[in-house]
Amino acid sequence: MNSLNNSYAEKAKLVRKWCLISTTEAGSGHPTSCLSAADITTVLFDKYFSYDISDPLDLYNDRFVLSKGHAAPLLYTLFGMANAYPLEELRTLRKFGSEFQGHPTPKFIYAEAATGSLGQGLSVAAGLALVAKRENLPYKTFVLLGDGELAEGQVWEAANFSSFHSLDNLIVICDINRLAQSGETMFGYDIEKYVERFKGFDFETTVIDGHNLGEIDQALKKAVTNKSGKPLAIIAKTIKGKGISFLENKEGWHGKALDKDELQKALSELGDINDNLRFQLKRPQQRQIFENNSQDHPLHFHFDKEKQYATREIFGKTISKLAESNKDIYTLDGDVKNSTFTEDFSKIFPERFVECYIAEQNMVSVAVGLSRLDKIPFVATFAAFLTRAFDQIRMARISGSNIKFVGSHVGVSIGEDGPSQMGLEDISMFGTMPDTVILQPADAISTAKLVPLMADHKGFVYMRTLRPKTQVLYENDSEFHIGGSNILRESAEDSMIVAASGITVFEALKAADELQQNGISICVIDCYSVNPVDGKTLENCCKKMEEPIIISVEDHFVHGGLGDFITESVSDKDIRVVKMGVTHISQSGTKDELLADAGIDAESICQKVKALLGSTMPLHL
Amino acid sequence: MNSLNNSYAEKAKLVRKWCLISTTEAGSGHPTSCLSAADITTVLFDKYFSYDISDPLDLYNDRFVLSKGHAAPLLYTLFGMANAYPLEELRTLRKFGSEFQGHPTPKFIYAEAATGSLGQGLSVAAGLALVAKRENLPYKTFVLLGDGELAEGQVWEAANFSSFHSLDNLIVICDINRLAQSGETMFGYDIEKYVERFKGFDFETTVIDGHNLGEIDQALKKAVTNKSGKPLAIIAKTIKGKGISFLENKEGWHGKALDKDELQKALSELGDINDNLRFQLKRPQQRQIFENNSQDHPLHFHFDKEKQYATREIFGKTISKLAESNKDIYTLDGDVKNSTFTEDFSKIFPERFVECYIAEQNMVSVAVGLSRLDKIPFVATFAAFLTRAFDQIRMARISGSNIKFVGSHVGVSIGEDGPSQMGLEDISMFGTMPDTVILQPADAISTAKLVPLMADHKGFVYMRTLRPKTQVLYENDSEFHIGGSNILRESAEDSMIVAASGITVFEALKAADELQQNGISICVIDCYSVNPVDGKTLENCCKKMEEPIIISVEDHFVHGGLGDFITESVSDKDIRVVKMGVTHISQSGTKDELLADAGIDAESICQKVKALLGSTMPLHL
Repeated sequence: MNSLNNSYAEKAKLVRKWCLISTTEAGSGHPTSCLSAADITTVLFDKYFSYDISDPLDLYNDRFVLSKGHAAPLLYTLFGMANAYPLEELRTLRKFGSEFQGHPTPKFIYAEAATGSLGQGLSVAAGLALVAKRENLPYKTFVLLGDGELAEGQVWEAANFSSFHSLDNLIVICDINRLAQSGETMFGYDIEKYVERFKGFDFETTVIDGHNLGEIDQALKKAVTNKSGKPLAIIAKTIKGKGISFLENKEGWHGKALDKDELQKALSELGDINDNLRFQLKRPQQRQIFENNSQDHPLHFHFDKEKQYATREIFGKTISKLAESNKDIYTLDGDVKNSTFTEDFSKIFPERFVECYIAEQNMVSVAVGLSRLDKIPFVATFAAFLTRAFDQIRMARISGSNIKFVGSHVGVSIGEDGPSQMGLEDISMFGTMPDTVILQPADAISTAKLVPLMADHKGFVYMRTLRPKTQVLYENDSEFHIGGSNILRESAEDSMIVAASGITVFEALKAADELQQNGISICVIDCYSVNPVDGKTLENCCKKMEEPIIISVEDHFVHGGLGDFITESVSDKDIRVVKMGVTHISQSGTKDELLADAGIDAESICQKVKALLGSTMPLHL
Repeated sequence: MNSLNNSYAEKAKLVRKWCLISTTEAGSGHPTSCLSAADITTVLFDKYFSYDISDPLDLYNDRFVLSKGHAAPLLYTLFGMANAYPLEELRTLRKFGSEFQGHPTPKFIYAEAATGSLGQGLSVAAGLALVAKRENLPYKTFVLLGDGELAEGQVWEAANFSSFHSLDNLIVICDINRLAQSGETMFGYDIEKYVERFKGFDFETTVIDGHNLGEIDQALKKAVTNKSGKPLAIIAKTIKGKGISFLENKEGWHGKALDKDELQKALSELGDINDNLRFQLKRPQQRQIFENNSQDHPLHFHFDKEKQYATREIFGKTISKLAESNKDIYTLDGDVKNSTFTEDFSKIFPERFVECYIAEQNMVSVAVGLSRLDKIPFVATFAAFLTRAFDQIRMARISGSNIKFVGSHVGVSIGEDGPSQMGLEDISMFGTMPDTVILQPADAISTAKLVPLMADHKGFVYMRTLRPKTQVLYENDSEFHIGGSNILRESAEDSMIVAASGITVFEALKAADELQQNGISICVIDCYSVNPVDGKTLENCCKKMEEPIIISVEDHFVHGGLGDFITESVSDKDIRVVKMGVTHISQSGTKDELLADAGIDAESICQKVKALLGSTMPLHL
């Protein structure tokens, strides 16, 4: 044991050395946050971690999630020590083009997720561990958290989730080094506070000195053999900057690299180090080639033109159908499955349904874990409540996750529940992130056709679904595609275009009928693909107009919505875009009262068309 | 005691009656969620709640926050029973124009905050309770939570905050009725799970039968005399739908009103009720007239033209200065005070500084509580991490709160830390909400001038601040206003306008210099007011151009940013707007490398100008 500990100690020195060198080379970074966790992670990697370094995506690999993403150099060094790449390359840390980003991103292929916004890693790890439980895979998931981030509520959502789902294959390592960015953490070295909290959330806990190699070894041994039915938290009391006398437990050293002189002093304190030491990772024992789960079975639906359907309900039916042939599809719910209609799925495929209860942040980051394992997670809740997880969604996007989001109850059209339940910021939220597809079907058929396209598309897709039922607009064999639109009314006499999406499509059609009675023709386009929006079709429809105008009308706040996508798509053309959308906080009322109050109902569209005609050209009467 | 209990029981029946009648009249709502909490809130209001019903803003009033906002009819009924309004008016529940919204909003003046997105009320209550502690006010704050929402991480952020700040004037009532929206909660009737969690977070706890009037009375008595230094949680085991046999503890009754026949059956079960029963609220004992805390002392700054300053640092200095004369200003921090520079403030005014640690959701909702008490909270963290609290920000906006947000480290210009730390969605996020002022000063002087305007403006204001230092652009006596801009370069020969904000102002100026050497003049405008943007000045500058073009250039994702505000502001003019912004996930690198990589540096601007000149008109060479 002593010689083993000596070997750990030597390797931990080498880990420290590279955390220090790389940050000094970069001129920035968080070396002291790496040093506090160097001992525990060295023992973990050297003795307990099973991993095929040639294949990070091997389904039998253990998983290591660095929740405290600012300790990125530690993550990089650990895998470098495991022969993932020559350690010298770490000198490119934080430099443009390097795989060694300031905080982990997918550029480093061994990172399970992008981290750096704190308190998200436990959820990602729980997602990874959940799949192992559900699919009977033997790997363990380890996650390293800092003490500062334990203040984030998401950690406790994830803790609830982990104990509720009996994830005893999940090992949570808390690096309690006392010091956060701007001062001491809430609890400093009062370790008992953390123990109480994890115990209160039904965890097994073990408290150790995070620099005592024997205690570390014992704790990890206990952890990997844990069959208690409860997840285990190792609460490690550590010293920030451990190993370098002038850094240890000192304020003012968070997020600060050593200068060259300080580095020399630090390295001389570490003493002689064998630079050739490396971890010999255990290879995962079992191996299995997985078949491609996804089969192409086109769905066939028949919707009755005489009936009305809610698009949220058709989403639920379609995803359940789709999941019969596509075994990678999971759905995640935040206790609204009877509203988003993932309830059907939950009954048919309980093994691929994940009830996250009312904890949206955890739900999104769990989906990041699922996506890492090549699942296709559909995250569904009220659109309004997806805002709860914007930071997690943002980080999932940086992670390059393949997640599908479905937000129901969009817009003022939900009616009586009032503004807190109305999704009016969701297009703006998803739209700001690069390459996010946004879809908003208006009827049953377009919904049923678009859901399979969501599943097939690699990357972020967001679908808005409606609370109220709507009439069927299309034929059962109509075709839809990402980036497409449909022209619903068109004539040679069209004076302008009304581009709508979702509920406003029906208002636009009503407006077209009313205007027609006054001898005014308008072109009505269903922009079911909000992003990318079908600028080409819009432009083509404009060609016959002398002074072309597109009115965009949407049940969303006016900034950041469909109107802005349309404006951008025709910005190099001589086309005027007039945006209609919600401009004030709404209230309770009927759907029709609220559409009128928001100025996005048929009547408002008629008035706008007439006003624009009056201002730009004589009426064709 | 028995006669008192009889009186409570009778009043609770009347409370139930109106929760049932109002939701049936509305045809929707959550009567069963009201009924589970009817007994405990009746005893609270009838015996323990001190409140001047004629003045909801009286600073000595006790506070009642309904975190489980879907029980809005209960909130309304309680205040109706306290003679706030004639109960008959409750028949307008959920109808257009009514003060009785589906979920509480400021239309009901007795609501401390808009609720309905779950898990936020404890934070609001903690904000209210904190002010009482800090300012030695005697009122108690009560908050009613549902069991479903205890899964939200924010609740545990707020729990940490409350125990850390020793808020023993805060009484948390948990209505454990077992049933959430779509099924049983995570823990059902396993009451001990909640006790363990609150105990683990350093709360005093009391478990009661939430329908036993004697137990309720004892628990509340203990609560209002609590001097333990710890907040107290009353964990009440209750029955959803309590009091009506066919509703009690039944699934399928969440968010569902009774039809007329069911209502009649329910009312007959309640039996004879004296409709004249009312609560006689205790009046708060102490009264005091508060002086106006805000005094107008113009600030004087002197910045050295030769030096560079980071706008985040000048924000910190200015807010500290401003707080000398304006005693209503509070600042709230999420453990980044040394980066946002609220650190100075924390040292000078510790009594008005609130360290929220790394828990942004709680921080924002605490600010809602402060705003309700007429404080002016400045919430400052990294812009990227404000996304963590989008739902809370959204609800704060619905609450009509007067909160100032400051997001530092915006854009790719932060450099080496990489994409997780870059605020690139913040303008889109704040911009989507109606009437939100967005400011982005580029230099020290504009920052120092705009911060006091933020404080004076009633409503939401968001300021973006920069990580890197920038040169001084303005004179110490330059003037700035919300909705304003500054023309930095202008000539009669300008071929187009470059509208920039923040860091890109300096890129635009560099571009102007470079272009000038090629004989191309451009107009450069500093849009320090992003929303409202100064469309008038932009338009005026366009007048001299034959085919006017505005290039907007911003360090923000291209959708939902400054460019979209500018486009909207000139949409009815014959002006082409070309948006330049960030279109892909960035990485680590130097500021200049990343501005170039994002295509928003001086060189990219030059190329864009030249390309546009090539495509639209011959060069004036």
